[in-house]
Amino acid sequence: MTRDGLTEKILDIKRQRDLKWSDICAHALPLSPVLTVGALLGQMRLGPDAAVKVGTFLALTSDEIKMLGEVPNRGMPMPPTDPLLYRFYELLMVNGPAWKALIEEEFGDGIMSAIDFNLDLGRQIDPKGDRVRLVMSGKFLPFKYYETDHDAAFSVMLD
Amino acid sequence: MTRDGLTEKILDIKRQRDLKWSDICAHALPLSPVLTVGALLGQMRLGPDAAVKVGTFLALTSDEIKMLGEVPNRGMPMPPTDPLLYRFYELLMVNGPAWKALIEEEFGDGIMSAIDFNLDLGRQIDPKGDRVRLVMSGKFLPFKYYETDHDAAFSVMLD
Amino acid sequence: MTRDGLTEKILDIKRQRDLKWSDICAHALPLSPVLTVGALLGQMRLGPDAAVKVGTFLALTSDEIKMLGEVPNRGMPMPPTDPLLYRFYELLMVNGPAWKALIEEEFGDGIMSAIDFNLDLGRQIDPKGDRVRLVMSGKFLPFKYYETDHDAAFSVMLD
Amino acid sequence: MTRDGLTEKILDIKRQRDLKWSDICAHALPLSPVLTVGALLGQMRLGPDAAVKVGTFLALTSDEIKMLGEVPNRGMPMPPTDPLLYRFYELLMVNGPAWKALIEEEFGDGIMSAIDFNLDLGRQIDPKGDRVRLVMSGKFLPFKYYETDHDAAFSVMLD
Amino acid sequence: MTRDGLTEKILDIKRQRDLKWSDICAHALPLSPVLTVGALLGQMRLGPDAAVKVGTFLALTSDEIKMLGEVPNRGMPMPPTDPLLYRFYELLMVNGPAWKALIEEEFGDGIMSAIDFNLDLGRQIDPKGDRVRLVMSGKFLPFKYYETDHDAAFSVMLD
Amino acid sequence: MTRDGLTEKILDIKRQRDLKWSDICAHALPLSPVLTVGALLGQMRLGPDAAVKVGTFLALTSDEIKMLGEVPNRGMPMPPTDPLLYRFYELLMVNGPAWKALIEEEFGDGIMSAIDFNLDLGRQIDPKGDRVRLVMSGKFLPFKYYETDHDAAFSVMLD
Amino acid sequence: MTRDGLTEKILDIKRQRDLKWSDICAHALPLSPVLTVGALLGQMRLGPDAAVKVGTFLALTSDEIKMLGEVPNRGMPMPPTDPLLYRFYELLMVNGPAWKALIEEEFGDGIMSAIDFNLDLGRQIDPKGDRVRLVMSGKFLPFKYYETDHDAAFSVMLD
Amino acid sequence: MTRDGLTEKILDIKRQRDLKWSDICAHALPLSPVLTVGALLGQMRLGPDAAVKVGTFLALTSDEIKMLGEVPNRGMPMPPTDPLLYRFYELLMVNGPAWKALIEEEFGDGIMSAIDFNLDLGRQIDPKGDRVRLVMSGKFLPFKYYETDHDAAFSVMLD
Amino acid sequence: MTRDGLTEKILDIKRQRDLKWSDICAHALPLSPVLTVGALLGQMRLGPDAAVKVGTFLALTSDEIKMLGEVPNRGMPMPPTDPLLYRFYELLMVNGPAWKALIEEEFGDGIMSAIDFNLDLGRQIDPKGDRVRLVMSGKFLPFKYYETDHDAAFSVMLD
Amino acid sequence: MTRDGLTEKILDIKRQRDLKWSDICAHALPLSPVLTVGALLGQMRLGPDAAVKVGTFLALTSDEIKMLGEVPNRGMPMPPTDPLLYRFYELLMVNGPAWKALIEEEFGDGIMSAIDFNLDLGRQIDPKGDRVRLVMSGKFLPFKYYETDHDAAFSVMLD
Repeated sequence: MTRDGLTEKILDIKRQRDLKWSDICAHALPLSPVLTVGALLGQMRLGPDAAVKVGTFLALTSDEIKMLGEVPNRGMPMPPTDPLLYRFYELLMVNGPAWKALIEEEFGDGIMSAIDFNLDLGRQIDPKGDRVRLVMSGKFLPFKYYETDHDAAFSVMLD
Repeated sequence: MTRDGLTEKILDIKRQRDLKWSDICAHALPLSPVLTVGALLGQMRLGPDAAVKVGTFLALTSDEIKMLGEVPNRGMPMPPTDPLLYRFYELLMVNGPAWKALIEEEFGDGIMSAIDFNLDLGRQIDPKGDRVRLVMSGKFLPFKYYETDHDAAFSVMLD
Repeated sequence: MTRDGLTEKILDIKRQRDLKWSDICAHALPLSPVLTVGALLGQMRLGPDAAVKVGTFLALTSDEIKMLGEVPNRGMPMPPTDPLLYRFYELLMVNGPAWKALIEEEFGDGIMSAIDFNLDLGRQIDPKGDRVRLVMSGKFLPFKYYETDHDAAFSVMLD
Repeated sequence: MTRDGLTEKILDIKRQRDLKWSDICAHALPLSPVLTVGALLGQMRLGPDAAVKVGTFLALTSDEIKMLGEVPNRGMPMPPTDPLLYRFYELLMVNGPAWKALIEEEFGDGIMSAIDFNLDLGRQIDPKGDRVRLVMSGKFLPFKYYETDHDAAFSVMLD
Repeated sequence: MTRDGLTEKILDIKRQRDLKWSDICAHALPLSPVLTVGALLGQMRLGPDAAVKVGTFLALTSDEIKMLGEVPNRGMPMPPTDPLLYRFYELLMVNGPAWKALIEEEFGDGIMSAIDFNLDLGRQIDPKGDRVRLVMSGKFLPFKYYETDHDAAFSVMLD
Repeated sequence: MTRDGLTEKILDIKRQRDLKWSDICAHALPLSPVLTVGALLGQMRLGPDAAVKVGTFLALTSDEIKMLGEVPNRGMPMPPTDPLLYRFYELLMVNGPAWKALIEEEFGDGIMSAIDFNLDLGRQIDPKGDRVRLVMSGKFLPFKYYETDHDAAFSVMLD
Repeated sequence: MTRDGLTEKILDIKRQRDLKWSDICAHALPLSPVLTVGALLGQMRLGPDAAVKVGTFLALTSDEIKMLGEVPNRGMPMPPTDPLLYRFYELLMVNGPAWKALIEEEFGDGIMSAIDFNLDLGRQIDPKGDRVRLVMSGKFLPFKYYETDHDAAFSVMLD
Repeated sequence: MTRDGLTEKILDIKRQRDLKWSDICAHALPLSPVLTVGALLGQMRLGPDAAVKVGTFLALTSDEIKMLGEVPNRGMPMPPTDPLLYRFYELLMVNGPAWKALIEEEFGDGIMSAIDFNLDLGRQIDPKGDRVRLVMSGKFLPFKYYETDHDAAFSVMLD
Repeated sequence: MTRDGLTEKILDIKRQRDLKWSDICAHALPLSPVLTVGALLGQMRLGPDAAVKVGTFLALTSDEIKMLGEVPNRGMPMPPTDPLLYRFYELLMVNGPAWKALIEEEFGDGIMSAIDFNLDLGRQIDPKGDRVRLVMSGKFLPFKYYETDHDAAFSVMLD
Repeated sequence: MTRDGLTEKILDIKRQRDLKWSDICAHALPLSPVLTVGALLGQMRLGPDAAVKVGTFLALTSDEIKMLGEVPNRGMPMPPTDPLLYRFYELLMVNGPAWKALIEEEFGDGIMSAIDFNLDLGRQIDPKGDRVRLVMSGKFLPFKYYETDHDAAFSVMLD
């Protein structure tokens, strides 16, 4: 059994039963639907409870439910060929240098964590056309400027 | 004169005069600093007024100020090798499938525009460590399912 | 069931029944045949009505008809190795800089939308040899030069 | 002297003298501005007359004018990172399979020439937002199914 | 049914019946064996007559014979890893600049068509070791330097 | 002034004055020499004190010293072509799957931070040949399984 | 039978029987679990004894056990898309130049062996959050500066 | 002095003196102009006599003439972006499998040499449009199926 | 039947019957085991006699034996990810420039043939650790500096 | 000063003084000319004595002589485009699987070292055409199957 095979099966079930993602995600709430869908598409894992609830709703086997709880090998092929996904790629490609300059000026040397991270997807009502809204926040992690306790670049030790 | 050469000169001036990005961006407000810095790094253009104000502050020549107002050839090398920038790339690579599934379920077939788009960078105070916060919004653009006014796939016309 | 598998099945049916694309597209008119064929080849979706009409004509199962109505993961491998497709790639590679320069001079900073876009394929009768004619039009989208409502590059907020 | 160096010089002159592309192209009319700009950006050549007229207007040296008349090594880096250019790339990546299927059904096995080709750029007035319009036409070239005049795959000849 | 699957089946038949390519190509003469073999390996199509003759000889099904008559998605992976094929790739990589310079000096700006093209494979008897001989000819296609019928780079039209 | 240019200058000075890295790093102790050398090679920054001490020792200009204190655009070309560096790449390529499996079994879903990270280089005396010893430790960061405070995947907000 | 197929089967068994890697590795101790898991995931081989013990515990067939003892074709796709694995890649990409400089200053021209190599994974208890700790050591191998026993670059020998 | 620099200088001279390639090649006849131009563009070397004759005609320095006689590092970037060169690339990509099959059937296992190779460029007069004609011939080199003089795969020898 | 499938079957047989490569190669001696194993792994062909002897020993079907005698599509994915194979790749990457310089100084402009080539693998007994020894020899092939029999770069011929 | 710049200077001197590599290498004998030339081309270092001797003969400055003694960043671009170098690449690509199978059968799991390695280039006189002969030998390094001294995959330690 492969994770890709499980994803294909889940999409088959979703189609046959005319389910929406929100129908499925309701069984894992309050876990963010971004994470639940991510797990069902093979990019995240579900905790044991969520895996059982979602898997039971989808009538998965117990082995398939266990697989939903395993950490997958994350990542999709890049660059994205799909237009919806490419726009995010382009935003980084065009704005990246400015984001780096401004975040470092504000926070110092470090990064925004992609692990201690959360995201909220929203619809922003707008008379000129509704907007997709993403609110992302990630913990700022400063680069650790660590010290050495010996004078040389190399410590020396006996085997 | 190349745009890369202009960027290098601007960074030299910024270093020599101990300027911060916010010192420079102040001359273009209320234009978003993300855009001002983007232009100074060669990814965006400044409108004529902003170009003159920022360029004068930086003591650029009139040709250099004109160049700041030109649309550059946008884009940086990908994938990013810098850790700060890579984290954004990774967020897309890991979360992309879920974002696509959920945005399409909510909005239908289409994309979030990367052109009619705005971004606000924020610092979210947090006792466990402050967080970098990005609020992005882009107009949803539905795929146009256009029609044809003739019966065949190919219209036929005389030269 | 995968989208590639569905495309292969549709091509098998088309071959067995000696159908032309125009025979199939007739069931979705006035939807542009470019879109109908795109959906049958796994790059577009059909709306519910078109999916049922086309799918019934092709004797697809109800699950297959549902899949025709789903947004696919768009994109084909690039660069194209097929000569017919490569010529379009080459046209961009050779003419791209001039298109960019002229469109920006005429419209300002922005892009031609690939989403609010339509295309008409035509045959142009010509005594020296007929010509393939493509009329493309996409809405011009100006880059949004957005403003900020606070003085600093970073807004600050409590959690 | 390199072609890139010449392009940079031309852009410097255009900036210093506040020229528009249309100001420059006027000296080569009725040659299509797409070709004139293409030559000035290093992707096309100008015929001797056009090269002299345009080069004189730009006050180029006689060697530079000669270089404008030379066939360059065509092509820009791909995939395009600039959003305006990427949209054309995406249109091919998404629509390519349908274009191929429909052109081959209409014309038979062959290609649309990218050499015996012409293009007209237009602005289509539209109350919902003006549109960029490209009308392309290329001669259809049928694949030549050539014959052999000997029975074996290999002709045999003495040196 | 996929084209790769058909190619594999044809190779199985060829092996089982101890056929040579020339045995098979004989049924399509005077069509060039380069094209017949190209079609059987999935890079070309056979016209209806040739497809029936060759397909009947190989005892293919009627659907398989139809597939032989379809235009495939052409192209093999590049760069070639096989030594025989790589040598042709290398010839282009090493001699390309000279070929371009000399063809353009002789013919002007344009290309040798790869569509209106023919090829003859030959064995050149040579006491120092026989030689493989390829005679290629392709129609020279001059770049079309097209004109515009309006003064501006952009025509303007109402919707 | 570019960071690459500064690195080249520093290497010139080191060569002319017959300095060792340890001679230079001594001026930044107890900062880890890995970080000091990283900064001098353009991959890290030095804090203001360290930058002044090291820069003064190397007789750099004040602008060069400021540049040493700037966060660079990190990353070197990959895969490494140098044998010493390639061995680390290979260790990951061969052992990566096992490292992932074991770290996730011990710590749960998450990563070892490359930012809150430290490294000690050592020489391990061994009669069969001394060994290079690297002790790395990075904070384990658990993937944040965040929740949503609304029932739908999408929050809805007015502009 | 392929190695990938065997890995998939082992993961199925592990899931069905709710085994941990440590349960499986216990049968190969004191062999390092990094190597045992590496072999089960298709990157290492197990010696005959370990293969039998581990394979028997997993109820593999004798052919599968033999395959566990075969040297695989090592290596996973790079760059890693999974965040846990990418962090190691990034550590090399950012720190590589400093590691090379310091190891060469300490040891001379040569490399750290990735073959005569060992690794210990550890958990470092830390009140600010536990840390993943890797202790790696590889034999230093000096580049062999070999001599020639003839005066010319080329020895000459009769066939 | 670099070979690219020499090529640029030669092109400058050719432009300034309004030379054609055939004017230059005349000084190296009967050496094939393909080779002479190849050398002048940095892909081939000229023998000492030809180098002196051609170099004297072009008024090169004696060091430059020596460089013309050196074997360059051959090869241009691939795939070719220029349309004229791409057509040759495409011919291989589309016809490669058939060429391989037919050459191996005629000659056995081996290759057409790209080293013991010659090429004649021609213009084929044709009322429907002249054709570019390439006649290539390369010595067929059979794969050597060599034998071993010991029974084991490995010979054993004392140091 | 595919060549990869045949290779997998041969490896299955080898494992089931506990064969060594030398056991199999013994049936093709004195053909070099490098070639025999190469054929069994899908990179070379066996001559008819060797194919029958080896295939009979392995109890292959007659079609499989015929396939062993067919020229495969040669080549494995590059760069090699396996450490044993990578070391050869690295030797070329590091030593290539020196090999080229020295071979050309000794032999003139040309190459070492990879087709008229033979290889002997050996074990060199060494008290400091046995060595793998490869003795390669390939015929030197001088670049052919061919002449033309007409004065112009282009011969002209009637169709 | 860059290593590439030094290489270019050395090649200029070699050309101006009509030196052969063997003239230069004579000053470093008995060091293998492969290593001496490798160092002069920027892939190896020379020991202090050899650097002084060779550098003095070439009239290099003392800083340049020091640079010759520094370990360079090794590696050339791959795949090689030059035919002479490509043949070695192809030999690996075609023969790699057989080399791996046979070396592992003879020596067990491990590699041939590319560091404890030596090479002798030779000319093998042959009436059918002289041959290039390479004798390579590298120490066999067995993969270390290391053990752990604790029962768990992870050792646990206090900070």
